[in-house]
Amino acid sequence: MANEIKATNITWHDHAVTLDEREARNGHKSAVLWFTGLSASGKSTIAQNVQSELFDRGCQAFVLDGDNIRHGLNKDLGFSPEDREENIRRIGEVAKLFADAGMIAMTAFISPYRADRDKARAIAGDRFIEVYVKADVAVCEDRDPKGLYKKARAGAIPEFTGISAPYEEPLNAELVVDTGVESLEECTARVLNCLVERGILRAD
Amino acid sequence: MANEIKATNITWHDHAVTLDEREARNGHKSAVLWFTGLSASGKSTIAQNVQSELFDRGCQAFVLDGDNIRHGLNKDLGFSPEDREENIRRIGEVAKLFADAGMIAMTAFISPYRADRDKARAIAGDRFIEVYVKADVAVCEDRDPKGLYKKARAGAIPEFTGISAPYEEPLNAELVVDTGVESLEECTARVLNCLVERGILRAD
Repeated sequence: MANEIKATNITWHDHAVTLDEREARNGHKSAVLWFTGLSASGKSTIAQNVQSELFDRGCQAFVLDGDNIRHGLNKDLGFSPEDREENIRRIGEVAKLFADAGMIAMTAFISPYRADRDKARAIAGDRFIEVYVKADVAVCEDRDPKGLYKKARAGAIPEFTGISAPYEEPLNAELVVDTGVESLEECTARVLNCLVERGILRAD
Repeated sequence: MANEIKATNITWHDHAVTLDEREARNGHKSAVLWFTGLSASGKSTIAQNVQSELFDRGCQAFVLDGDNIRHGLNKDLGFSPEDREENIRRIGEVAKLFADAGMIAMTAFISPYRADRDKARAIAGDRFIEVYVKADVAVCEDRDPKGLYKKARAGAIPEFTGISAPYEEPLNAELVVDTGVESLEECTARVLNCLVERGILRAD
């Protein structure tokens, strides 16, 4: 039967699903939550914790972090300034795509350069929420869960942020949490409150 | 109060949201639906139409196509074989991320090289469903909605697939639709049926 129909005169009509429709369905707005901070500051842990809380509230959320980006999309990139810039550019673009799909996209990368973060902000538009996960280098170095600071101090890792490469603190982050003094639960709660205050989530 | 808590002894525990949990919530499995075919074969239109149908059924789905990839994530890439390969590699990685987020990711790109599509398949694993959107060059050239074939014939577009660059037909696509003989509605229905048959969607 299929073969009897000629397609030359069919109507090719797009009726795309809009972002508004997605957000209405999901019951929350889309956003790009951009976590930035030193290695071992707690970015990924907070992002994962926020994701769990969002999931429990029925939200669509997804974390982009080293585990799913560095070995996949960005496996061709190293840690030179140029490669860090391209790394963050691609992550910014992918985060935007997730937000366009109606999700709360969270990114957990050191993203040490202000200019690169600002580009990611420009890509996402007014849905961009920068969360500075603050912690003194000493605190991060004390944690050092992967032994990276130790290696960096020994000179085994070149261009290590906070030791041998710069970290440019955010000047106007939408939220600053300090994992040197706040618990994971407090940081998580403050991120969720921020989402409510900005109208991304409904208060519950 | 936050300042009274020292973070050195807090427990940093990840409790990640699993793919199983996402799929159970969404009511369908995740997948990468990879549409391949000539320019103007109908890939993007079918993908958009499938997306609309999936949305109406309450599914989480998202289309990656030239509109949201070529001007964003892959704006640094051209149409040389090397750039086409990197283009498809990145799209394969991003589609995998969307599937990891529990979604039915759809990609609508010519993706002319078999080897590149096979790499995308390897990235996505057994969730990969290749849909060959077949249409004779003559049919596509007759449609030519963007005037690209005309330009390519005039030599204004180098390396144009089907005219001056090869298209390698899929040998083992999970689904083949022929837009030269099947209507948009038929193609859409066959894609949805394929998703049901493969256990991605529940029959309804």
